[in-house]
Amino acid sequence: MDQEEKPSAWETLEELVRSDKSEEAQDLLESLSPQQTTLAVSRMSEEGQAQLLSTLEPEVAADVMELLPESHAADILERLEPEAASQIVEELPEPDQTEILSNIDEHRVEAILAEMDPIDAESIRELREYGEDEVGRLMGTEFVAIYSTDTVAKVIDQFRSNHQLYSHFDVQYLYVLDSHNVLVGVVPLRTLLLSGHEQLVRDIMIKEPTRLRDDTTIDQADRAFEGNSLVALPIVGSLGEMLGVVLRSSVEEARSKRSDEDYLKAQGIIGGEELRQFPLFVRTHRRLSWLSLNIALSILSASVIAIFEDTLSSVIALAVFLPVISGIGGSAGYQAVAVSMRELALGLIEPREVLRVLRKEILVGFLNGLALGLLIALVALYWHGNPYLGMVVGVAMMVNNIIAVLVGGALPLVLRRIGKDPALASGPILTTITDMSGFFLALSLATLLLPLLK
Amino acid sequence: MDQEEKPSAWETLEELVRSDKSEEAQDLLESLSPQQTTLAVSRMSEEGQAQLLSTLEPEVAADVMELLPESHAADILERLEPEAASQIVEELPEPDQTEILSNIDEHRVEAILAEMDPIDAESIRELREYGEDEVGRLMGTEFVAIYSTDTVAKVIDQFRSNHQLYSHFDVQYLYVLDSHNVLVGVVPLRTLLLSGHEQLVRDIMIKEPTRLRDDTTIDQADRAFEGNSLVALPIVGSLGEMLGVVLRSSVEEARSKRSDEDYLKAQGIIGGEELRQFPLFVRTHRRLSWLSLNIALSILSASVIAIFEDTLSSVIALAVFLPVISGIGGSAGYQAVAVSMRELALGLIEPREVLRVLRKEILVGFLNGLALGLLIALVALYWHGNPYLGMVVGVAMMVNNIIAVLVGGALPLVLRRIGKDPALASGPILTTITDMSGFFLALSLATLLLPLLK
Repeated sequence: MDQEEKPSAWETLEELVRSDKSEEAQDLLESLSPQQTTLAVSRMSEEGQAQLLSTLEPEVAADVMELLPESHAADILERLEPEAASQIVEELPEPDQTEILSNIDEHRVEAILAEMDPIDAESIRELREYGEDEVGRLMGTEFVAIYSTDTVAKVIDQFRSNHQLYSHFDVQYLYVLDSHNVLVGVVPLRTLLLSGHEQLVRDIMIKEPTRLRDDTTIDQADRAFEGNSLVALPIVGSLGEMLGVVLRSSVEEARSKRSDEDYLKAQGIIGGEELRQFPLFVRTHRRLSWLSLNIALSILSASVIAIFEDTLSSVIALAVFLPVISGIGGSAGYQAVAVSMRELALGLIEPREVLRVLRKEILVGFLNGLALGLLIALVALYWHGNPYLGMVVGVAMMVNNIIAVLVGGALPLVLRRIGKDPALASGPILTTITDMSGFFLALSLATLLLPLLK
Repeated sequence: MDQEEKPSAWETLEELVRSDKSEEAQDLLESLSPQQTTLAVSRMSEEGQAQLLSTLEPEVAADVMELLPESHAADILERLEPEAASQIVEELPEPDQTEILSNIDEHRVEAILAEMDPIDAESIRELREYGEDEVGRLMGTEFVAIYSTDTVAKVIDQFRSNHQLYSHFDVQYLYVLDSHNVLVGVVPLRTLLLSGHEQLVRDIMIKEPTRLRDDTTIDQADRAFEGNSLVALPIVGSLGEMLGVVLRSSVEEARSKRSDEDYLKAQGIIGGEELRQFPLFVRTHRRLSWLSLNIALSILSASVIAIFEDTLSSVIALAVFLPVISGIGGSAGYQAVAVSMRELALGLIEPREVLRVLRKEILVGFLNGLALGLLIALVALYWHGNPYLGMVVGVAMMVNNIIAVLVGGALPLVLRRIGKDPALASGPILTTITDMSGFFLALSLATLLLPLLK
């Protein structure tokens, strides 16, 4: 709260950077909590951020990068000189390297990689080849490889002499490879502690350890971590050769990132995330592209009303109920969409099981449609005293509710089957259908019963 | 695909359980992939599930439980005898114990805990005291405690003799306590490997290690794991006394669970998740409670139309544009809600910074409102040839768009400040406001210009 009075951290930081006091800036930054750091750096000017990050020690700069949203970290990296950027990238954990670079323009990435140690750069290039949904993308390629014929004493020696090399990744398991680099066993660190120095690796290792192919999907990888307390799993190629290690937390993080993106897409924020420090043009443009599509669909469904303009002007009371019928249809449909999305994510349903969903939804739609239809019919009756008007809006509400849950329940499965993104496409398709059917049901029924409604 | 022809796994499982072939059922289960297990068990009848889980070895049953959604695992547990249930609970990792039990009726939980080892039961009771958002809830209370004056040799000895005890939790760090159980240091396992047997713990330990208070929020805990590669952090009480250990993956999982719940709530699935195997009554009832609220709000906003019925019947062409104006307002508002929710979650904005959000939104709302207003005005002009009608719908669209992004952007912050759940409440409040303002803007403008519109 007192940040209101004295200059806030970001203002002080900006000031220090502008007056070239980079050491004081680094001291200030190190005194902030992670949360304060995120807030302070994100509020600085673009030039301030770039200047700050290029003067910090690369290690500290990398820590700051990890605290920022990926898209934002990528923006800053893009504005740095390739050499400064490459030094920071070298200090990031491997999965973060790939993720942040994936938000940067291709040419720029190559310029940054060109400044790096060629071996590190090559390894990043390889990870970048994996698809967004493949676990290979999330792996670290540094691990401790040992051989089944080694003694425990030799392994401990190897571990000691490579101490420096291993110190910046958190080793939990040692991986036992054969002469073709095929993974044949795993030795947890603590087993090493518990074993005699003369024992052979092959006698203490866990044989046939759980492993994941590099093209395993994130969801499958996530399930592989369920029901055990492993902190990491080895990743192998098609011949069983050891390629790297994926941490349980990287998989969890990737899943949680995807749910976040799905939420944003479902709410109409597409093309990656939007943060309010982004330039105005980027923000308006991205939002507008989504709204333009929606306005076109919305005009399409409203044109159903135009067809029945004569009916509507004879029974103007209907105008009040049209948005209620279409709106509640939309809400009921969204509920069904959410349940289907959830069941797909949990693996409780397969995309081809559309019939099962329809069977499960139709009764819910009928019962709730009946309740909501009765309710709105009573409101209409009470308001206008015409039982036929009540009947028209009640029946339209009920039938529209059934259509909504059937469409909403089936859409995510169908979209998934045809390879479209259900998080993105379900909403607009659903509301277009429920609007059209809601308007059509109410107005066509009214047209049929017109003499009774006037 | 071929599951369609031969009996699917769940049918076979059901069959085996019914004919009391529990060993064969266990063999079949162990041959399935985690994904297949989830699908198979979730499709069995309720009785089949209960019978299966009570005949499996508790350890295997616990593995199955971990593969099911929590609410579903809890349902099954509730149907088992307390003794059978308690045996399964004992085999679950600690955070999962707390989470699954939190879905079960209080009396039932006590019955289950009464069957357990009193010490384990007490520890579960203590974890259940923590709030949903406190990291204490996620901790494991089993850890290896050592003392700063011990030698490495003594620690390794201790480790060896407690080998059995430690084997079912994945030890990565040893925690150094003083005589008051206050945490004074951490020794990673690998440091132990690299140290001489005569060295003292105090000389090899990491002093002043990062630790979390047990009442730290999940979000803060998540940030504490950013910028480092630690797999676990120690949890301490208000006096610095060591209470337990929280895994990075538990924190990630809790966050991802919360995003999932937020998504479900935003789509109108409240009161926990809904799965299609739940009883029809539960599903309809929960969905209906949400829809009933929405229908009331929807009638409220549509009543604005009723006030202007005379205007509308004179300019019936407006009826087509009303749902477009209100609908697009809703979409634009949802975009702003999503950006605010995202910035709150990332810690890029604090709930009191409503003014900042309004400043950032108003330009976006104005620019997009202008574009969309022009578009709809042209459509109206082309459709009906009356420039004043175009003006009315265009201005209403533009102003409503500005209102929508301001309300949508501010709502999550305001709701958070007054302690309400923004994921749940933002949607209905937003659409009620954008509907009302959209209808009101278009119809009141039309009333003013009525002579020009006829």
